[in-house]
Amino acid sequence: MADQTLAVVFAIFPNVTQLDFTGPHQVLTRLPGARAILASAGGGPIVSDDGLVFAATVPLAQVERCDIVCVPGGPGVNAAMEDATFIAELRRLAAGARWITSVCTGSLVLGAAGLLQGKRAACHWMSRDLLSSLGAIPDPARVVRDGNVVTGGGVTAGIDFALTLAAEIAGETVAKGIQLGIEYAPHPPFDAGRPELAPAGLVARARQSAATLMEQRIAAIRRVTARRGALEIA
Amino acid sequence: MADQTLAVVFAIFPNVTQLDFTGPHQVLTRLPGARAILASAGGGPIVSDDGLVFAATVPLAQVERCDIVCVPGGPGVNAAMEDATFIAELRRLAAGARWITSVCTGSLVLGAAGLLQGKRAACHWMSRDLLSSLGAIPDPARVVRDGNVVTGGGVTAGIDFALTLAAEIAGETVAKGIQLGIEYAPHPPFDAGRPELAPAGLVARARQSAATLMEQRIAAIRRVTARRGALEIA
Repeated sequence: MADQTLAVVFAIFPNVTQLDFTGPHQVLTRLPGARAILASAGGGPIVSDDGLVFAATVPLAQVERCDIVCVPGGPGVNAAMEDATFIAELRRLAAGARWITSVCTGSLVLGAAGLLQGKRAACHWMSRDLLSSLGAIPDPARVVRDGNVVTGGGVTAGIDFALTLAAEIAGETVAKGIQLGIEYAPHPPFDAGRPELAPAGLVARARQSAATLMEQRIAAIRRVTARRGALEIA
Repeated sequence: MADQTLAVVFAIFPNVTQLDFTGPHQVLTRLPGARAILASAGGGPIVSDDGLVFAATVPLAQVERCDIVCVPGGPGVNAAMEDATFIAELRRLAAGARWITSVCTGSLVLGAAGLLQGKRAACHWMSRDLLSSLGAIPDPARVVRDGNVVTGGGVTAGIDFALTLAAEIAGETVAKGIQLGIEYAPHPPFDAGRPELAPAGLVARARQSAATLMEQRIAAIRRVTARRGALEIA
């Protein structure tokens, strides 16, 4: 980059799953010249789904441009997909960004903003199929790159996503140095991190406890696509 | 637990490596009855080593008791080890806690508080040997349990640590359900997450760029142990 800085915007919202972006934030801020900005529709403090309070987020409208825009996921994507300010600012930043990215259900928000038309994208396993309604092609990989769109799967996939993106931007040696710094040699105590691996009962229970959230999510996507259809007709 | 709540205190400090505790926070808050508290010596906002601002931390002195106390690591441990308020309150909370825990170089702070005498403990690879000076037995495992002391290795080991602790507290089924929820089926793009695996040049460069930090860390540990020696003589 000419000016030697790499502006990374994490576009967050109330009820975000914080690990979706705190993992990538810890990785991407270690890139040479990186300057990360935590931004939200209205600015000010944002409370995550697990109760952490992120102070001092910048209003998205005040961010002039960025090299990377990253949208995390979480229960709050249901509202974010229909937040006109959030979506408009996300579109604006994405138009000038080198990399358009998401982690977890953040890809639904990219889709709601019309940024995934015909693109392969990752998502949290439970919401992955919903990407189709938003014009994207669901991909079960943990990290998916389609052109300048790079998306990660559920929550912890953000770390794999960020190291992959780090290598694209600064090369493998830099990315490996970051991996060493964060001692990322994962060793999960169990092997239940994907529905294909977890006991069927646990998968069923996870779906059951998220049933209302998923109903609301589907309803939100229907409204988003209906509005988009109305726009295209008009 | 009689009162059905599980109070988890993350004792943080300026210049903390946020992923050390944001990973465990996302995991442990999903335990039944969990109530997490972000606390610091003075309360108020805390800025992490990568520039995130955590608002609304509670002064440690205002936390009456907890079931789990967890100390993360980061560059800020150098100062935290010598912060009399932080150390005194950590000791007080640890005395009443069911689990005394740390992630990354947080174990150095536990050690500085005299909580690791003769205990095996994990640490970030670069600082692991320093545990000996603080009375602990350095252990290269990613998650180490010694009695009610559970410690994780560097940064991302916090997720493995938290799932291990979750299983101890609520059983394997609950822990696996959490693992599925955060889609923790890690797939690092490279295999450089430990010094034994990374190219020698990268390990050397990591040590070189941390040289000043490590000198200051060793000096802090010397002062801590000298003061402790003086106390024991007096």
